[in-house]
Amino acid sequence: MTDPVTDPVTDPVTDPGTDPVTGRVAGPVLVVGVGLLGTSIGLALRRAGIEVLLRDVSAENLRTASGLGAGTVAGSIDRVRLVVVAVPPDHLADAITAALREADAFVTDVGSVKGDPLRAVGERVDGSALARYVGSHPMAGSERSGPLAASAALFDGRPWAVAPHTGSDPVGVEMVTGLVRTCGAVPVTLTPEEHDRAVARTSHLPHLLAALVAGRLADAPASHLALSGQGVRDVTRIAAGDPALWQQIVAANATALTELLNEVRTDLDRLIEAVGSGARDEVGSVLGRGVAGTAAIPGKHGGPAVADGAVFVAVPDHPGELARLLADAGEIGVNIEDLRIDHDQGRPVGLVELTVAADRVDFLLGSLEARGWTTHG
Amino acid sequence: MTDPVTDPVTDPVTDPGTDPVTGRVAGPVLVVGVGLLGTSIGLALRRAGIEVLLRDVSAENLRTASGLGAGTVAGSIDRVRLVVVAVPPDHLADAITAALREADAFVTDVGSVKGDPLRAVGERVDGSALARYVGSHPMAGSERSGPLAASAALFDGRPWAVAPHTGSDPVGVEMVTGLVRTCGAVPVTLTPEEHDRAVARTSHLPHLLAALVAGRLADAPASHLALSGQGVRDVTRIAAGDPALWQQIVAANATALTELLNEVRTDLDRLIEAVGSGARDEVGSVLGRGVAGTAAIPGKHGGPAVADGAVFVAVPDHPGELARLLADAGEIGVNIEDLRIDHDQGRPVGLVELTVAADRVDFLLGSLEARGWTTHG
Repeated sequence: MTDPVTDPVTDPVTDPGTDPVTGRVAGPVLVVGVGLLGTSIGLALRRAGIEVLLRDVSAENLRTASGLGAGTVAGSIDRVRLVVVAVPPDHLADAITAALREADAFVTDVGSVKGDPLRAVGERVDGSALARYVGSHPMAGSERSGPLAASAALFDGRPWAVAPHTGSDPVGVEMVTGLVRTCGAVPVTLTPEEHDRAVARTSHLPHLLAALVAGRLADAPASHLALSGQGVRDVTRIAAGDPALWQQIVAANATALTELLNEVRTDLDRLIEAVGSGARDEVGSVLGRGVAGTAAIPGKHGGPAVADGAVFVAVPDHPGELARLLADAGEIGVNIEDLRIDHDQGRPVGLVELTVAADRVDFLLGSLEARGWTTHG
Repeated sequence: MTDPVTDPVTDPVTDPGTDPVTGRVAGPVLVVGVGLLGTSIGLALRRAGIEVLLRDVSAENLRTASGLGAGTVAGSIDRVRLVVVAVPPDHLADAITAALREADAFVTDVGSVKGDPLRAVGERVDGSALARYVGSHPMAGSERSGPLAASAALFDGRPWAVAPHTGSDPVGVEMVTGLVRTCGAVPVTLTPEEHDRAVARTSHLPHLLAALVAGRLADAPASHLALSGQGVRDVTRIAAGDPALWQQIVAANATALTELLNEVRTDLDRLIEAVGSGARDEVGSVLGRGVAGTAAIPGKHGGPAVADGAVFVAVPDHPGELARLLADAGEIGVNIEDLRIDHDQGRPVGLVELTVAADRVDFLLGSLEARGWTTHG
C-alpha cells in the first residue's frame, strides 16, 4: 500500500480529499452494499455531482441502485479515493478488511456499532492499512429496507457519527467528514468506544426496553388494549423494527449494552421494591430522574432544549382541513416545531397537536380561536 | 338515602337520567374538583346545554372555572342527578364517600385507578349507597394542569373507561355512559379490576419504563446525547410527566403494576443473559414478541390496526411550506393518518413524515414528486 501522507492522492496540502471551498468529499467513491443506506449515499453523492461506483453481492440490487441513479456498477476501482462499506453488521469486518486490502484508498463504514468491527479488522491488517480506516454511523434509517427505499434526502440534517480510532490518518478523518457533509448530514466526532456507549444509551437500550413494553401487550385482551393512548404508542413504536437486523446490532454492541441493561435492572429492582412497599419517595426519585433525562435530550435544532408548549385543535379528518389549519398557523406567524394527528375512535374528526415554543402557546390559541378553530392548550 | 330504582329522579322508565333520543346525560351535574379534567368536563357539558354546578377547595380555581363557562358555583345541590368527582388520586375515596353521603344522586369519578378507591369507599358506605357509585376514567389529559388548561374538546374521540362494580345500579351505569357520550368520548366498559390491569399495561408500565430509559440519559455526556434520534425521543416523551401525580397513580395501582413489573424483570433477566452469552435466538425471541405487541395495539380509528406506510418529504422549515404540502396532499386525495415534523440540526429544512395506508405510499410518492417535492418512502 501507499503512504497516505506522501501519496499524491491523499496529500493533505495538494489534494486533501475534500474540496477546500465546499468541504465536500472528492470522488470517485466506491459504495459496497447497495441496500437502503448504501443506495441513499450514492444518490446523495450523485446529487452533489460526485462520481460513485457501486458493488453488491446481489446483481438485482446493483441493477436497481444504478437504475435509480446512485452510481455506476464498479469495474476498475483504481481511481477510488474512498470506499463506503454499507453491509449488514455481521459482514462489516470482512468487508472492511477486504476493502483495505484491495483498494489504495480510505475506507469507512456505516454500521451501527464501531468497536467490534474495528477490533476484528485490526487483527487482520497491519497498522498502516488500519490507518486508512475511519468508521462512521449515520443516525438515519427507515422501517423499510433495500435500494427501492433509498433517498438522496435520507441524511439531510441528521447527526452522522464520525468515529476515528487512535491510529486513523487525519486526512481520512477529513475525507469521511466531507462525505458526511456532502450527504447533507451533521458530523459528530466520537471515539469508537464513546460512539458505542452513546448509541447503546440513545438507541439500543431504548429499542430493547420498547420491545419489553410492547411484549407485555402481545397477549393482552382486546378490551384492555382499547384503552391504549398516544403514550404507549410512542413508547413502543420503534419496537416494530426488524428483529433480524436488531439481533445483529445487539450482538455487536453486547458489552456496552450489558452494562446499561444491568444498570436498568438495578433501577427496576429498586422500583419494584418501592412500588410493592409503598415507598413513594423512592418511586418519585425514579420518576424525577426520568424527567431530568427527557430534559437532557438536545433540542431538535441541535441547540439546547427549549421549553415547548402544545396547542390542540379539533380538525375534520381530511387533508384539506389540515392544510387550512397550517395555512392559518402560517399567517399567524408561529413556527410549528412538531405536529401530531390524533384520530378519534370512530368519528370523522381528529385532534391535531401543534408543538410550538412555550411562550407562543397563548398567542397561537387566541389567534386560532379568532379564526374559528376549536382549540385547547 | 333514596332507592335509586324507585326514586322518581332515577326511575329508568320515566326518567332514565339520559335523554332517550340523544343518549346524553341529564343535568344538573355537580363537578367536584375543577382542575384540568373537572373544568374540561364542565365545559363539555355546558357545550351540550347541560346544567353544571362546580365545587373546589380552591376558591381561585372555582372562580377561574366558572369564569371560563364550565358551570356555576354550587349552592344547593338538591336537584343534582350526577356527581363527577375529579380530585387528585390521594383524595378520591374521601371525596366519593362524601358525595355518596351528601347527595341523593349517582356518583362517578375520573381517577386513573378504579379498584383501590372502590375498596376504600365500600368500607365506609352501605351497599345501597355504593350502588350509586360507578367509577370511570377518561383516557385524555395534558402535560399542563389546572382549569386554565381545560377544554370542552379534551375528550373528543378519546376512549373513556366506564367501570361499574358488581353492585352498581344499571341506571347509574347508563347515566355515566351518557356523561361519556355527552363529553364526546367513546365509552369502553370494563370491571374495575380489568380496568386497573388494562391501564397498568397500557399506561402505567410504559410510563415507568420510559422513566427508566430517560433516567439513563440524565448523566450522559452531551456528545453522546448529540446522537439522539427520533426513537429515543418517542420512547421517553411521557417520562416528562409530573412525578407528584404519577407517584399517586403508581401507589394506587401497586398490585397490578407489581405483577407486570415482575414479568418485565423476568424478561429483562432473560435478555441480559442472552445478550451477555451471545444467545441470538433468545434476543430475537424478545424482539419478535415486541413486534407482535406493536401490532396488537388497535388502529387509530378504533378498528383493527391497518398496515401503515411512511412517506418522507423535505420541507423548508416554516409553516407556509407545510400548508402547501398538506394542500397538495389534499388535492392528491390521500388521507394522512399521521404527520411528524423531524427538524434537522441547524439547517432551515425539515423532514416531514406522512403516515398513510401502506397501499397508498407509492401513489402519494409519485404524485408529490410530480408536484416538485423531494420525497422518499
